[in-house]
Amino acid sequence: MSFASLDALCRRLEALDHAQAMLGVDEAVNMPDGGGEKRADAMAALAGMSHEMASAPHIAEWIDKAETEDLDEAQQAAVREFRRSYVNLTCLTSEFVGRQVNARIRSEQLWRALRPKGDWKDFLPSFENIVALAREEAQMRAAVLRLDPYDAMIEQYDPGSRADEIAKVFADLKSFLKGFIPKALEAQAERRAKRPLKPFNATFPIEKQKALGLSLMRAIGFDFNHGRLDISHHPFCGGVPSDVRMTTRYRSDEFLSSLMGILHETGHGLYEQNLPKDLSPWPSAKARGMAAHESQSLFQEMQLSRRREFWEFALPLAKQHLGAEHFKGFEVDDMLAHVHRVERGFIRVDADEATYPLHVILRFELEQELISGKLAAKDVPEAWDAKMRDYLGLSTIGNPKDGPMQDVHWPSGAFGYFPSYTLGAMMAAQQWAALSRTHPTVSDDIRRGDFTAINDWRRTNIWSKASTLSTPELMRQATGEPLSARHFEAHLKERYL
Amino acid sequence: MSFASLDALCRRLEALDHAQAMLGVDEAVNMPDGGGEKRADAMAALAGMSHEMASAPHIAEWIDKAETEDLDEAQQAAVREFRRSYVNLTCLTSEFVGRQVNARIRSEQLWRALRPKGDWKDFLPSFENIVALAREEAQMRAAVLRLDPYDAMIEQYDPGSRADEIAKVFADLKSFLKGFIPKALEAQAERRAKRPLKPFNATFPIEKQKALGLSLMRAIGFDFNHGRLDISHHPFCGGVPSDVRMTTRYRSDEFLSSLMGILHETGHGLYEQNLPKDLSPWPSAKARGMAAHESQSLFQEMQLSRRREFWEFALPLAKQHLGAEHFKGFEVDDMLAHVHRVERGFIRVDADEATYPLHVILRFELEQELISGKLAAKDVPEAWDAKMRDYLGLSTIGNPKDGPMQDVHWPSGAFGYFPSYTLGAMMAAQQWAALSRTHPTVSDDIRRGDFTAINDWRRTNIWSKASTLSTPELMRQATGEPLSARHFEAHLKERYL
Repeated sequence: MSFASLDALCRRLEALDHAQAMLGVDEAVNMPDGGGEKRADAMAALAGMSHEMASAPHIAEWIDKAETEDLDEAQQAAVREFRRSYVNLTCLTSEFVGRQVNARIRSEQLWRALRPKGDWKDFLPSFENIVALAREEAQMRAAVLRLDPYDAMIEQYDPGSRADEIAKVFADLKSFLKGFIPKALEAQAERRAKRPLKPFNATFPIEKQKALGLSLMRAIGFDFNHGRLDISHHPFCGGVPSDVRMTTRYRSDEFLSSLMGILHETGHGLYEQNLPKDLSPWPSAKARGMAAHESQSLFQEMQLSRRREFWEFALPLAKQHLGAEHFKGFEVDDMLAHVHRVERGFIRVDADEATYPLHVILRFELEQELISGKLAAKDVPEAWDAKMRDYLGLSTIGNPKDGPMQDVHWPSGAFGYFPSYTLGAMMAAQQWAALSRTHPTVSDDIRRGDFTAINDWRRTNIWSKASTLSTPELMRQATGEPLSARHFEAHLKERYL
Repeated sequence: MSFASLDALCRRLEALDHAQAMLGVDEAVNMPDGGGEKRADAMAALAGMSHEMASAPHIAEWIDKAETEDLDEAQQAAVREFRRSYVNLTCLTSEFVGRQVNARIRSEQLWRALRPKGDWKDFLPSFENIVALAREEAQMRAAVLRLDPYDAMIEQYDPGSRADEIAKVFADLKSFLKGFIPKALEAQAERRAKRPLKPFNATFPIEKQKALGLSLMRAIGFDFNHGRLDISHHPFCGGVPSDVRMTTRYRSDEFLSSLMGILHETGHGLYEQNLPKDLSPWPSAKARGMAAHESQSLFQEMQLSRRREFWEFALPLAKQHLGAEHFKGFEVDDMLAHVHRVERGFIRVDADEATYPLHVILRFELEQELISGKLAAKDVPEAWDAKMRDYLGLSTIGNPKDGPMQDVHWPSGAFGYFPSYTLGAMMAAQQWAALSRTHPTVSDDIRRGDFTAINDWRRTNIWSKASTLSTPELMRQATGEPLSARHFEAHLKERYL
């Protein structure tokens, strides 16, 4: 039975994944610095074993034979997804992987050293090498997958998503946002003239912030029997579906950045916790990809937790945990003024939900040209600046630190990843629209802090599907239509105008 | 190069060990209950991979060939130890290992359920099976190792230790203790008549206890850049040499049990942290075995930290961290009255350093007879009772919960492990004697909280040797004589009479 062989292999790979995931969490949360070197050795060795096992040549035969065996639907989906991941895993030669891993590590290290100084000149040779390798990689992937080179890169992160489809929705969104943002800023100024932003002038002890975060996570449906919340320098959602490890970072002069971060990561956590547990070793039972995952965190953060009804529910809890004395005269509108801020800025990770997509579209457009060869690595700063001026009215010329040197993605060789963020934002808005159609009382639910029906919808339509469908097909089946920008645009208009 | 193949294998095994060690720590310290099932699956799969890799048949050839290669001393030691561990790992048939693993898991589970009720009758069939398997195991090991069956079992835990040598030292110690304990109890009563035991009537907040524990660990030489202290239900010292994870458990009504536990585990931790780091993947660079490890924790706890000079150093720190108000009228003698208590009892893990060896000798004598077949599993309660009455004047008849059902070792199939505890205690006393001979000012060092010279001696004579010598040879080289009971006996007389 070849399927049985694949199944046994999946169980071993799951154990290695489990170990790597938990070692990663421990490294970020608990590990003393001196443990780092040996930890890195162990992680590299485990990754090597995992790759070796998952890419062994005889697996191709197992997959071929398994496809001829008498399998149920779930098993067929597992074989399908196993083929997809096997092909993606094996389409690069090991000679190339060796060259690329080295170049990536060196480039990322160099970037970390040069970024604070904004030293583009010294970074460029390394970046040119990375771009050349990415082009080579895209060609290799494209040849095996029979896709366009850039599509073959996206395929790693969002199976089934294609650049020409993305470009259409992004073009729509871009033209909308260029007109929308000035209007949103104007509307915001008017609101603030009527109701000035109330600052928090208080110290919020970490223990109290944590208690508030935990109480909201619990209300939202995070299962603390299968997960926990810790502290790390960079917040993340890691671990395994049976034991999801979320982290946050607290600052005591304000509580909203940590709290909104917790709510965002809880969206990732719910997805992981609600994947089909009994099929967990199979690739078909894993989360679908980066855009789908981001759609879940943004659904939680943007669609649910920055909504007025959510703050009708959450403001009393915040008062209770943090002390009502810090919220004197605060109404829900005052909280919304904090969580609905629009501002043009240089830095993607600091951007709000309205300006964020323009940062992503800029990168999407540039990396397509980088992969196709239309754009040379050395010309990136000028191209970046031109688009920043066009989309956000900001110039980054002479300021590469706040321009093309701000993200780790390209220095570490990840091309094709950026679109996921904005695909996720649009998917989240479209899911919210679909959910609202079938559950007209959803706003009342949120106001009461009752997420049962909402989570049932998400479980049925997204979480339980895991990787049995491509990213576009997952969206089509969940929402009854292909991905479009219109729901996200409607959402922005409703919230900010 | 066969040595190069062994070396590469060692690095992969080290990564798997690293993962298993850290997953074990995480399970005890952080994991939510619901994560347990998948964690167990992952641990079992990693253990399986590790065993498969470490016992592959071609390794025998690598070892043979490596022995003919031109190797330096450290490499030769690595090959020697690799052969020893390979032979120990492969001397059981996989058919037998399968049967035994199942029986052990079921027997341990049954024991956990029946122990609270002291239900020996229902446990007996499972225990008889475990004993039968242990006899079979001992025979198999003996045939390959050309040792007596019980020696072959000990060999897993303390390479080079032999039952007849142990029996001689234990006989000496037993006859000493049977006379010594009544005298020690009498002397204790006299001391208490003069100076009644001062109770602590206070609440000691966990944070303050932790700060005291950390300050003593730091003073003693624990490296917090390569380790940390956490909380778990059962205290342990785990992790890897580059990242030692110690745990304790606090109760707020007293601080000494947790503190002495921390000092004990710190002894284990120092051993791990001071193994030769640059050779870490090789088996020759690991800690020597159970007795050697226990000698390090007991050296720290019994030889150093229950000594008068240690409390001259530690009492001011305890006052500083826990609050001087709880120590009103406390002198060093009052602390010593707490940490030098002798009391006959049923339970080994609750025993003091004077009565503990009798618990061990009882088990050592019974398990030899169990393995040889002289004693039947069903007759253990009577044999246990007879020895308890003889050695400690306590009867356990009709009370198997406080008799043969108290320990996890036999129910989980571990025979040959028990002697390690008392071997460790004697080794620690003998190490202290050797250290005191070469460093006459050692008591002053302790009084000042300066452990530099002490740790230098331990590093040179024990820690840096790792597994390059057998347990008896390690002791011989470190102390200039073979293991004997006399230093431990002298230590007890000095402390308790």
